Amino acid sequence: MKLLCIGEKINSSRKEIKKGIERSDKSLIQKIAREQAEAGAHYLDVNAGLFMEREPEKLCWVVETVQKAVDRPCCLDSPNPQALEAALKVHRGQALLNSISLEKERYHSILPLVRKFSTKIVALCLDDGGMPKDALDRFHLASMLIERLTKEGISPDDIYVDPLVQPMAIDHVLGPVILDSIEKIKTVFPEIHLICGLSNISFGLPQRKLLNQVFLILALAKGLDAAILDLTDPGMTSCLRAAQVLLGQDQFCSQYLEAFRQGRLNF
Amino acid sequence: MKLLCIGEKINSSRKEIKKGIERSDKSLIQKIAREQAEAGAHYLDVNAGLFMEREPEKLCWVVETVQKAVDRPCCLDSPNPQALEAALKVHRGQALLNSISLEKERYHSILPLVRKFSTKIVALCLDDGGMPKDALDRFHLASMLIERLTKEGISPDDIYVDPLVQPMAIDHVLGPVILDSIEKIKTVFPEIHLICGLSNISFGLPQRKLLNQVFLILALAKGLDAAILDLTDPGMTSCLRAAQVLLGQDQFCSQYLEAFRQGRLNF
Repeated sequence: MKLLCIGEKINSSRKEIKKGIERSDKSLIQKIAREQAEAGAHYLDVNAGLFMEREPEKLCWVVETVQKAVDRPCCLDSPNPQALEAALKVHRGQALLNSISLEKERYHSILPLVRKFSTKIVALCLDDGGMPKDALDRFHLASMLIERLTKEGISPDDIYVDPLVQPMAIDHVLGPVILDSIEKIKTVFPEIHLICGLSNISFGLPQRKLLNQVFLILALAKGLDAAILDLTDPGMTSCLRAAQVLLGQDQFCSQYLEAFRQGRLNF
Repeated sequence: MKLLCIGEKINSSRKEIKKGIERSDKSLIQKIAREQAEAGAHYLDVNAGLFMEREPEKLCWVVETVQKAVDRPCCLDSPNPQALEAALKVHRGQALLNSISLEKERYHSILPLVRKFSTKIVALCLDDGGMPKDALDRFHLASMLIERLTKEGISPDDIYVDPLVQPMAIDHVLGPVILDSIEKIKTVFPEIHLICGLSNISFGLPQRKLLNQVFLILALAKGLDAAILDLTDPGMTSCLRAAQVLLGQDQFCSQYLEAFRQGRLNF
């Protein structure tokens, strides 16, 4: 089991990226795309949510700009079906859509895109009843999503369940709840994938990078096999490469030693 | 579940400590004892193995010197029953002996000390047949040790099973093997403890501290509840405190925030 790494940086909620998109600054977006690909990202997350009604046009521009620079598929990060469809029309390769959920409107607007464009899909443990409470809640939501999506003919290998990471600062049980959710879902559905955005977990606490990195390691131990993260951060790469060695996911330690030689294990 | 932390530094295999013991340098030994206690060590490992036939005398001196400086019990780290008995006679509180195993001679020489002095005991997954091969091997050795020790009247709460950490550099499956062993043993025997010396895992690989720290985090996720480690290393403390938050072992993040205020989360 290897970790599918999705580079998180091309997100319009980051000031640098917002400016870059506003100014149609291709070289900036492409530089960040290249850096992430070189650091080991398999997919690049792209988000233009900040541009509201101009999101479809902007997301298309970002996808085309990124894919001119690097040979990587994108994780299209938007709840807006118009933006997703526009982006899918220009996207090369199999995109990952982020995300579908059991919220009625979202489910019915995103599902046709998954089928029409044969994408991979992030399935978020959320319905119209509000935030899931515990690991069992998340497990039930995941089960329903997996059942409905596979009935629609979507391959389990294309489904990435996201247990919905919430900040530990809200409630200190949320860490174990999310880790347990990952373990429960992966144990019962070994053929589907588990994905997280890492950084929500540490919101409101000091030393956020430390918590994000340790959360990645713990989640890997529980069965996480995809993550939206920043591999250009040497701390994150160090933790990931070391965890992969220790979990037996890096035969002969070759990725670890390669990262060491490249000076990426700056610990 | 909290981690029992055993400070690893007062070990005669370290040059500074060897010199300190040779010169009967109380202030050096006591300084290192205090630093470890302040950093959160519950026990202090003491080892005078390098002094061979003078080990009993030297180990006694170390125990008395340490316990004059800090109010902590010791982990008496020696395979030599004479050294252990001498040290136990001067030790205050409940000592932890490191270690017994299923090696015949060792078993029969250490067991009487555990009973006579009502100590806690590290039970190493090893017999006279040589190194254990895999997780199942380790599980069987642990089962036999637990069965025999509890039949002798030793409380499960006083037993610390050590799955025998070997260097990943020898064989890249050793990481997962040891992590699986911890999980298997803790699942079947939840009332006993699991302990590791961390640093063996990284022998022969670059960036050893990184591997040791990530190994601690992964082992905690599998059920490790005691470790011989260096809490005066800010990287180790950072990883431990963050992992305890995320595993729900640090209510209200109080230990994490305390470590942050003390400037111990230098990540």
